[in-house]
Amino acid sequence: MPKKNAFYAQSGGVTSVINASACGVIETARKHKSEIGKVYAGRNGIIGALREELIDTSKESRSAIHGLLTTPSGAFGSCRHKMKTIEENRAEYERLIEVFKAHNIGYFLYNGGGDSADTCLKVSQLSEAMGYPLQAIHIPKTIDNDLPHTDNCPGFGSVAKYIAISTREAALDVASMCESSTKVFILEVMGRHAGWIAASGGLAAEQEGDAPHIILFPEIAFNREKFLAKVKRTVKKNGYCVIIASEGAQYKDGSFLAESGLKDAFGHSQLGGLAPNLAQMIKDEHGYKYHWAVADYLQRAARHIASQTDLDQAYAVGEAAVEMALEGKNSVMPCIVRGKGKRYRWSIGEAPLDEVANVEKMMPRSFITRDGFNITQAAREYLEPLIQGEAYPEYKNGMPKYVRLKNQLVPKKLAKGFKV
Amino acid sequence: MPKKNAFYAQSGGVTSVINASACGVIETARKHKSEIGKVYAGRNGIIGALREELIDTSKESRSAIHGLLTTPSGAFGSCRHKMKTIEENRAEYERLIEVFKAHNIGYFLYNGGGDSADTCLKVSQLSEAMGYPLQAIHIPKTIDNDLPHTDNCPGFGSVAKYIAISTREAALDVASMCESSTKVFILEVMGRHAGWIAASGGLAAEQEGDAPHIILFPEIAFNREKFLAKVKRTVKKNGYCVIIASEGAQYKDGSFLAESGLKDAFGHSQLGGLAPNLAQMIKDEHGYKYHWAVADYLQRAARHIASQTDLDQAYAVGEAAVEMALEGKNSVMPCIVRGKGKRYRWSIGEAPLDEVANVEKMMPRSFITRDGFNITQAAREYLEPLIQGEAYPEYKNGMPKYVRLKNQLVPKKLAKGFKV
Repeated sequence: MPKKNAFYAQSGGVTSVINASACGVIETARKHKSEIGKVYAGRNGIIGALREELIDTSKESRSAIHGLLTTPSGAFGSCRHKMKTIEENRAEYERLIEVFKAHNIGYFLYNGGGDSADTCLKVSQLSEAMGYPLQAIHIPKTIDNDLPHTDNCPGFGSVAKYIAISTREAALDVASMCESSTKVFILEVMGRHAGWIAASGGLAAEQEGDAPHIILFPEIAFNREKFLAKVKRTVKKNGYCVIIASEGAQYKDGSFLAESGLKDAFGHSQLGGLAPNLAQMIKDEHGYKYHWAVADYLQRAARHIASQTDLDQAYAVGEAAVEMALEGKNSVMPCIVRGKGKRYRWSIGEAPLDEVANVEKMMPRSFITRDGFNITQAAREYLEPLIQGEAYPEYKNGMPKYVRLKNQLVPKKLAKGFKV
Repeated sequence: MPKKNAFYAQSGGVTSVINASACGVIETARKHKSEIGKVYAGRNGIIGALREELIDTSKESRSAIHGLLTTPSGAFGSCRHKMKTIEENRAEYERLIEVFKAHNIGYFLYNGGGDSADTCLKVSQLSEAMGYPLQAIHIPKTIDNDLPHTDNCPGFGSVAKYIAISTREAALDVASMCESSTKVFILEVMGRHAGWIAASGGLAAEQEGDAPHIILFPEIAFNREKFLAKVKRTVKKNGYCVIIASEGAQYKDGSFLAESGLKDAFGHSQLGGLAPNLAQMIKDEHGYKYHWAVADYLQRAARHIASQTDLDQAYAVGEAAVEMALEGKNSVMPCIVRGKGKRYRWSIGEAPLDEVANVEKMMPRSFITRDGFNITQAAREYLEPLIQGEAYPEYKNGMPKYVRLKNQLVPKKLAKGFKV
């Protein structure tokens, strides 16, 4: 029987280091050519498997694959296709296994967050039941840092570094202008359910009085009066106020601050989002001049200032996934384990997929100050190691050199297509 | 008669390299101690002079001053105080001269954009008339790149680099997700009157089809139908569409796109701004899923990825200002002169202030493609040299090391205060 091939796919929102995990997978597989066949990557994630659009990574040069280390976003394409339950859409799962069978794929390496961990688990279970067993390994990736079991998620450290730096820089700007101009600056960051990214903005502060003065976490119910009072106190004391607002900030009843409830003449919901809504709230109450920024994709694509620690870990989980596959493991996820002791050390551990799938890890209450507006020393000690080191890409002509792969598809073997 | 002191002030919106100009001023003045006294910096710009709040830069260590090279924003504080005409507020000008006289200030070094060039000129003229002649030198600074005479403005190159890189990074993100998710991404950038910053996003493209696919310049009247048609064509052809929108984008009648004209229940103007308005316009017409980012202060404070060329030029104009002062010059501005020939070279020239004050340099039409939606090769050749080199700051503990000055004030000498 020929060696089994591996299928690798990127899932969900991409990060500035998810390609480093791909690099870890492909480089490690290439080191084990006697045991493992080709690495096929899904074109646009799992959709590529369903459509039998498999990218043959063996067509890529060594330097192109190595260039993935410094290239943000999903080099093979990712997708937001959520697999339904097996009961709801058994055909999709069966199609996957049919494609894997046709291409002699024995390893399913799925690089994503909580949803994809669940898919990964289900694929493994169903393949077993269908008599074509697959080893399914989930490779953790999410800027949201909300996966359980792993100490942190590859992808998060770089966003954290970007947000911490951007906060420190923008705060210097506001501080130098506040006497006669902008007094309040709001930076809206990602994180719909968990406040990890917002928390990382807290690393901008070095001493008492430093920005950010207020962080809004999804974990803490927003209280308009308390918030406005804190803004006022901060401006009176420091001359300005810098606010990091998680896009998931919400009222006690669970409604998001980003939804203003207003409609325009055509009945469309009002535009804007969280940062401008907060800014207007402050302006109405206190009259302060404001500015706001929404980092959006800039934060999760900012490979130009990625964390070296994050990059190393992203590579390591990709590498470990292949090693685990070769050791015969199934339904597991390599994870980051933090060592004990004062100096930060990390190693790769292993988590069972059924304990990872569909569980969200929120910020512990002990990481948030009693008033709910900032991070504690415990949070700082957790976060700080994750942003260490500057993993600069190479530059050419003033711009970062990011690779473009050939992304050549493997000839299809199945007669039938599949509509996704 | 004792040596004359110099007064230096930062004016208007700060940049990631304006402190490099301050560093050039102070280090150069320190080299000429036999000819020039102390450098006093205005606390919060010209307001500091009016209030007699002068920072004694001689109290700062050599390494602190050198640290200004890598510290973004205004280390002494800046302000948005626009001096009125002499006819409207002669008292302000007289106060300035009174303060300068009291502190034996003979050199007025004013670091700002078009407005401050005008103030600088007026101060010089009035001081002459009042019998206390000052040498007034204007040091160019503006991210908007809209000063005449100088080939480019210190501060612009670093924003250009940041926007070009951010565009390339975010575009990779969108490209990798567009099959099943976001199809349109809008990045709103600064530049209310001139499209230089928006144009710099064009440097993200390397080949046909690359982002940005559409750039909206203030110089080109916005045409809704043409724009929406272009978005659709782009999505059909490339699968996604990346748009750089200058905050100053406007309709033919001069009204800004950022103003939606909508009001909420309390009669407040609708929030939002340009990027969300454009996003909604596209959604309504084509139904595409969108994301948008507003870089705001992040772009002009992003010292972590400053252009080395920009940094060198910012330092050089500060240095040249002191040298010009020592050569007895008055009412001039050191400017950047681009050398002839293919290889980019620059040197410092000199522009008369009366030709700089209150003149805005727009993007030439030849820098914008015929359809109004992108930059031409000529623009690229102009812009590219300005983003060369990565002037990384030092890092400590994962974060950039930015200096904090003591900013110790000189004891006041005037009996009377002055209300600003």
